[in-house]
Amino acid sequence: MPREFRIERRVQFAETDMAGVMHFSNYFRWMEEVEHAFFRSLGMSVVQPHEDATISWPRVQVSCEYLAPLRFEDVVTIELTITDVREKSVTYEAGFLTNGVRTARGRVKMVCCQMKDHRFTSVVIPDFIREKFDAGG
Amino acid sequence: MPREFRIERRVQFAETDMAGVMHFSNYFRWMEEVEHAFFRSLGMSVVQPHEDATISWPRVQVSCEYLAPLRFEDVVTIELTITDVREKSVTYEAGFLTNGVRTARGRVKMVCCQMKDHRFTSVVIPDFIREKFDAGG
Amino acid sequence: MPREFRIERRVQFAETDMAGVMHFSNYFRWMEEVEHAFFRSLGMSVVQPHEDATISWPRVQVSCEYLAPLRFEDVVTIELTITDVREKSVTYEAGFLTNGVRTARGRVKMVCCQMKDHRFTSVVIPDFIREKFDAGG
Amino acid sequence: MPREFRIERRVQFAETDMAGVMHFSNYFRWMEEVEHAFFRSLGMSVVQPHEDATISWPRVQVSCEYLAPLRFEDVVTIELTITDVREKSVTYEAGFLTNGVRTARGRVKMVCCQMKDHRFTSVVIPDFIREKFDAGG
Repeated sequence: MPREFRIERRVQFAETDMAGVMHFSNYFRWMEEVEHAFFRSLGMSVVQPHEDATISWPRVQVSCEYLAPLRFEDVVTIELTITDVREKSVTYEAGFLTNGVRTARGRVKMVCCQMKDHRFTSVVIPDFIREKFDAGG
Repeated sequence: MPREFRIERRVQFAETDMAGVMHFSNYFRWMEEVEHAFFRSLGMSVVQPHEDATISWPRVQVSCEYLAPLRFEDVVTIELTITDVREKSVTYEAGFLTNGVRTARGRVKMVCCQMKDHRFTSVVIPDFIREKFDAGG
Repeated sequence: MPREFRIERRVQFAETDMAGVMHFSNYFRWMEEVEHAFFRSLGMSVVQPHEDATISWPRVQVSCEYLAPLRFEDVVTIELTITDVREKSVTYEAGFLTNGVRTARGRVKMVCCQMKDHRFTSVVIPDFIREKFDAGG
Repeated sequence: MPREFRIERRVQFAETDMAGVMHFSNYFRWMEEVEHAFFRSLGMSVVQPHEDATISWPRVQVSCEYLAPLRFEDVVTIELTITDVREKSVTYEAGFLTNGVRTARGRVKMVCCQMKDHRFTSVVIPDFIREKFDAGG
């Protein structure tokens, strides 16, 4: 710890709005994309079969601060840093960099849950997942 | 037959793109909105428990023709007309009217399916659903 | 002050995700919808021609806390409360209520800007806008 | 002619719906993504400054046929084939392949327009663009 991971992403046309910039809600989709790519890099999915159930990670608190707009076809580096791992929750921060300049930063706190029939019950993070978070990529 | 139904919908900011108009993909979301409102008007849901399964309606063919752009805060009437009901499928057309002028028209063909564990199997439209389509609102 | 405003909104199918609940990013689109309806209720638009320019309100900081999931076809009341009006910025909170129970709460801080050629310059909130915020609906 | 181009794209979580599959409207966003990547591969943008105006390509007719659902984290090849270039319009088809199997096919007809103040006027495709389409990648 801290664990870091990054992807590159290009702003798509459908992600812009009439102000000519990426709509602010789409940053949260990008945070989720880097998070899920991070899970894949550890050999897991964010929707992970485990024993008789499925482990998933509903979000409980999210935020984003916007420093400069993103425009169509901008290529952005999104950096994920795991900042807190608790018994049942994980928090990460996401930095957005365009040409080396920080353009936004976000944070997501998510809770480890068993999902069954679209219902969620929070659970202690299973050891095989916690070990992957701890071990590094 | 034909069955008609309509809703009003306002173009939201997040639905526009950098060209200043509603993104063309969102028309399909609006078609689905009028369709689902139509199901509700018949006392059903598009995701309908039935015996031991769930009836759902995956799309198999869709199209849209754009006649004039929609802009932020435009109020649009979306008219659904059921144009074809077969053994296992339903086709409807959606007309988009802005200030009485037709601005787009679309079509959706969807198939009646049993959904289980996120898998779909096409089935004959159950009688209680077919009757509702036939009976009128 | 404080100014309050509310709308009702139904969860649409396209707003759900494979976990069977409304995707967390869509709450921010809903906050924007109640905000823009609030502007309209004051006889303005969030994209407002003013003298030779256009006034718009880019977001600088947003957050959301999720208390219980929203599901397809849930009807949700979204309550906007203006909590802070400064020289150049406005902050509001949005409460999400489903059947009278609070299911989420969010916050948006936005800055008054002149927009020209898709570029933003922060400006003091024009008097005719500030007066509308102060005067009540 | 015909010109072909392809990209790979992974189904993201926010692109799924409660039926556990990619929402049908998102296929149109993917078609646009391969189209815009194609423009970039020719050294252009789909929003292209030209003389005193901006050239853009509003869609006039689109369709999609769905053969098999796409699921979260599926990796899909999207193949663009230009099928018709007229004086003012271009039509392309998009094939979706998952593990070598065709899962969807779509078509987009778009019109070459000058865009000014968010207004569109159709124009003859400028020679420098037509030549790029003709010349191959």
